[in-house]
Amino acid sequence: MPKLWTETIDAHRAAVRDAALNAMAALVAERGLVSLTMSQIAERAGVGRATLYKYFPDAQAVLTAWHERQINAHLDRLTAAAEPAEPAVVRLRGALRTFAEIQYYSARHHGGELAALLHSGEHVDLARQRLREFVENLIAEAAQDGDLRDDVAAGELAGYCLHALTAAGTVDSHDAVHRLVAVTLAGLGTPAPPP
Amino acid sequence: MPKLWTETIDAHRAAVRDAALNAMAALVAERGLVSLTMSQIAERAGVGRATLYKYFPDAQAVLTAWHERQINAHLDRLTAAAEPAEPAVVRLRGALRTFAEIQYYSARHHGGELAALLHSGEHVDLARQRLREFVENLIAEAAQDGDLRDDVAAGELAGYCLHALTAAGTVDSHDAVHRLVAVTLAGLGTPAPPP
Repeated sequence: MPKLWTETIDAHRAAVRDAALNAMAALVAERGLVSLTMSQIAERAGVGRATLYKYFPDAQAVLTAWHERQINAHLDRLTAAAEPAEPAVVRLRGALRTFAEIQYYSARHHGGELAALLHSGEHVDLARQRLREFVENLIAEAAQDGDLRDDVAAGELAGYCLHALTAAGTVDSHDAVHRLVAVTLAGLGTPAPPP
Repeated sequence: MPKLWTETIDAHRAAVRDAALNAMAALVAERGLVSLTMSQIAERAGVGRATLYKYFPDAQAVLTAWHERQINAHLDRLTAAAEPAEPAVVRLRGALRTFAEIQYYSARHHGGELAALLHSGEHVDLARQRLREFVENLIAEAAQDGDLRDDVAAGELAGYCLHALTAAGTVDSHDAVHRLVAVTLAGLGTPAPPP
């Protein structure tokens, strides 16, 4: 097969997949999760039911794939927020702010039921791992620059940050999100010199 | 009925209830959650199956009651850790350390399956509310004493602390728990004066 043709097929597959995920998201937003069916998703996506089944075994699989797409988009946004020319501490601040904002908006968009359903599974663990490593590296770099405390390992500090910032899902204003980021960053500050 | 008799009955009821909860905890520890039955719980608790049904409608209810008992014991331990004569900031430090230790040991004792099953429900929401208020009041008092930052509302700082300290469930040593508490407290510190 000429390369061009393969690319066309790949693009077509990606388009069908995306249409299915978008259809699912729209259906969930309108009617909730209960009784989400493959027929509804196919109809909304504008593809045949048989076609949809070639891509996904069931509605749960569409949901998981959608969540994976969301998470990866969030991660890309987070890592892109870090302008490589900036010092590590500035990139860290940007990444943590972005993470907190994602927590804030996600809590608003999909509440308890969906969150409980989605926030487990291999794809989430992988994304969490990728995020943690990204933050850990920024912290290690900033600590080496002397801009952060270096008395606690970067991995532990990354765990602290990411847990603290999940509180952004519980606050009720955008300003409160920014205050939370400032408080969390204060925890990372150079420790006071011993008395 | 004379008062003494009522007290005897109440004590008996509490004893049966406790025996059932202890039996459930022992069974889950030995065999896991799957196929936990009322008959097994009754047998292990040393009461009749019919008696057990007078106390709990099903095994899930025993599990929830057990979790409620655990949570209340934790909360009592946490609030008791605060010696009333100490300044608020010292009591806060003690309470946060205790909370972090509970997170650390709970993550070790009941892992994913049990946690996902238990960490929702009205009794958990109530306990979380009680805990948050307790920490919020200590923070407000310490801020008034001038021992903590006062540029962020006590409620927001309480949310920050409790989320940050859940990271104690992911670390792998007791020392790391103490470092996490220190980092979290640093976030609460008086903010640097403006430049």
